[in-house]
Amino acid sequence: MGVREEVLGLALAAQRASRDMANLSSGVKNSLLLRMATALEAAQDELQRENEKDLQQARENGMAAAMVDRLALTPERIKGMADGLREVAALPDPVGEITGMWLRPNGIRVGRQRIPLGVIGIIYESRPNVTADAAGLCLKSGNAVILRGGSEAIHSNRAIGSILQQTLAAEGLPQAALQVVTTSDRSAVTELLKLEDQIDLIIPRGGEGLIRFVSENSRIPVIKHYKGVCHTYVDAAADLTMAEELCLNAKVQRPGVCNAMETLLIHADVAAEFVPQISAAMRQAGVELRGCEKARAIQGDMIPATEEDWHAEYLDLILAVRVVDSYNQAREHIQTYGSLHTEVIVTNDYQRSQQFLREINSSVVMVNASSRFSDGNQLGLGAEIGISTTKLHSFGPMGLEDLTTRKFVVLGEGQVRN
Amino acid sequence: MGVREEVLGLALAAQRASRDMANLSSGVKNSLLLRMATALEAAQDELQRENEKDLQQARENGMAAAMVDRLALTPERIKGMADGLREVAALPDPVGEITGMWLRPNGIRVGRQRIPLGVIGIIYESRPNVTADAAGLCLKSGNAVILRGGSEAIHSNRAIGSILQQTLAAEGLPQAALQVVTTSDRSAVTELLKLEDQIDLIIPRGGEGLIRFVSENSRIPVIKHYKGVCHTYVDAAADLTMAEELCLNAKVQRPGVCNAMETLLIHADVAAEFVPQISAAMRQAGVELRGCEKARAIQGDMIPATEEDWHAEYLDLILAVRVVDSYNQAREHIQTYGSLHTEVIVTNDYQRSQQFLREINSSVVMVNASSRFSDGNQLGLGAEIGISTTKLHSFGPMGLEDLTTRKFVVLGEGQVRN
Repeated sequence: MGVREEVLGLALAAQRASRDMANLSSGVKNSLLLRMATALEAAQDELQRENEKDLQQARENGMAAAMVDRLALTPERIKGMADGLREVAALPDPVGEITGMWLRPNGIRVGRQRIPLGVIGIIYESRPNVTADAAGLCLKSGNAVILRGGSEAIHSNRAIGSILQQTLAAEGLPQAALQVVTTSDRSAVTELLKLEDQIDLIIPRGGEGLIRFVSENSRIPVIKHYKGVCHTYVDAAADLTMAEELCLNAKVQRPGVCNAMETLLIHADVAAEFVPQISAAMRQAGVELRGCEKARAIQGDMIPATEEDWHAEYLDLILAVRVVDSYNQAREHIQTYGSLHTEVIVTNDYQRSQQFLREINSSVVMVNASSRFSDGNQLGLGAEIGISTTKLHSFGPMGLEDLTTRKFVVLGEGQVRN
Repeated sequence: MGVREEVLGLALAAQRASRDMANLSSGVKNSLLLRMATALEAAQDELQRENEKDLQQARENGMAAAMVDRLALTPERIKGMADGLREVAALPDPVGEITGMWLRPNGIRVGRQRIPLGVIGIIYESRPNVTADAAGLCLKSGNAVILRGGSEAIHSNRAIGSILQQTLAAEGLPQAALQVVTTSDRSAVTELLKLEDQIDLIIPRGGEGLIRFVSENSRIPVIKHYKGVCHTYVDAAADLTMAEELCLNAKVQRPGVCNAMETLLIHADVAAEFVPQISAAMRQAGVELRGCEKARAIQGDMIPATEEDWHAEYLDLILAVRVVDSYNQAREHIQTYGSLHTEVIVTNDYQRSQQFLREINSSVVMVNASSRFSDGNQLGLGAEIGISTTKLHSFGPMGLEDLTTRKFVVLGEGQVRN
């Protein structure tokens, strides 16, 4: 059997299973997730044994120590996966919700009801815990899921998948509701991405390279975000002590993630005071500053920023700083260089805060808060399946509801159309 | 200037204009649409003069009379376009709606606010009225729109576009909010479909060939439906008089559209009575019947149905008829052959009606109503921009709200993340 046939067979089985999963009660789904959590913990030795095969291979291939670390399934991480499943079990079930129902003049009643998407494909790199995390969210929202992790984690992913499938079977549910693509053939991904009649959504999780590859090769809708070039704009009416705290948190609390601040915009009216203030604070935190000419006129020891810096997602302790003459210039900067991820204004001017909220159409816009809150958990969605910086279907951090869609329900009593 | 540069220039201008359009009040947008309506009516002579060029070309090219008729801009159709704009002006504005706001434990408030998608590309065939209809919906929902009609309607589309642009200018709004791609170069469409950084959504309107071409060549998300293979299932507990009326309406009231019934499923328990009853009624209405073996055992003069018939979207006075042994067999038939468009159950059995509503996840599911109601206007969405049978973003008939997305709004008072 070729890869194409293997992947198609798997997708057809997922599609059949998805019809059963769509009709499960919340109680059955929650019980399933809780048992999966227990099963993962009980299988700790087996999981670590399989994981060791991946780790050994990685070391033999000369993988960098930090990458090897990401691959490792420690007892803490196994417990983390189990706890993640328990958290998802505790979240409200979006499936079945009727979002509005109305009466038409001819007497038919029309409503919209939330249903699962169907079959979701997750394509990811390295961290084997994604296998359990993504599976939990997809199953809780009534979907079937096809998981394709990186080849470097193949033994770990296969072992996790096998335990989760055994739990499905033990609960009398179709094992095809959760499948791990374990062929080492790299064309499995491109074959998977062609199956638009069987798979409803693809979510790539990984670096920009993976996301671009998936996006460019997929016939199936892809939820994606390429990068997070997040801005904080310190307005003329900002509380500068608050501004310093928010900027520091946004830049240094965890610099390597997509909701960290990459560019700081400072209104000219407060630049003389705030540029030296934030420079000192950032330097103390080990942040390298790259400034525009006006910023450097105030703080001469900044590295000159180039056009490239305004586009950059550093994911590191580096910050681009620009002094803007007006709110409008800040807005234009964000619209020109932003990635539609997250933008923050620091201000005590009510009108300005409202204007920013209205005019900046990034996926998350904030007043007087750290950009680091741009995350499904922090925003209150429960667990996060990903973040979208394209506007279709979902925009911003995505939770369980984003793995569903709505159908129209029509209740008639024999009405016909004239 | 090549086609690529021309199309890119147009898309960049649309993107800039979309930022202004996103912030217009409902009053300004409604006033714009009402003035556009008046302007189209006032320009009737000019529109008919330009339309005549297309009609003459079409006749010279030997276009079929029915196609030439679709192309014609009669005074009634011009009034129809104007009235369409007035109807859209009267619809509620979805932009700005806050759909929920909640408080997080750390005191930040998080909400979701509805915003326009940005730039929408409409790719369509023949009927020049789409130019005004689609433009009205896109502008009312705060978007900029790029319109690419068929080359056979190029003079008509250019004339309509020019009048609508003049109205934008007269209202002090950016003309680039509405642009018609008028180059005759056919590569304009493929170039347009590559501009994922400038255009947020593509909506193709036309036959399956156009939709497949757009879908296969687009880097931008596409809202689409390929076909409507709509089923009516007459249950064992159906009122057969009602069933006959609903089936007749669904099949013959307008057979050439996507929400017409294509396959009739009849429960075996009522087949002996209903097959002859519906056969007589359909034949009287000029409908050709193609039946399964069991249906033909009752009504021998039906043409034998083949596997192909179960997949067929006839768009004509032809109906496939199958007798099923059970509700489950009806459900499996719909899941196997359906196109996720619209399915109807006729029954007086409450439990069965609920099961059908729950288990059939097509975009529109109905109890005791004609499938012909599956339409944005009939369901109460106001004007319809299209229908989606893929589940991402929108599923089913699409109105103004489907041309928007939601951003997260976060209101803090200096909170940072721990």
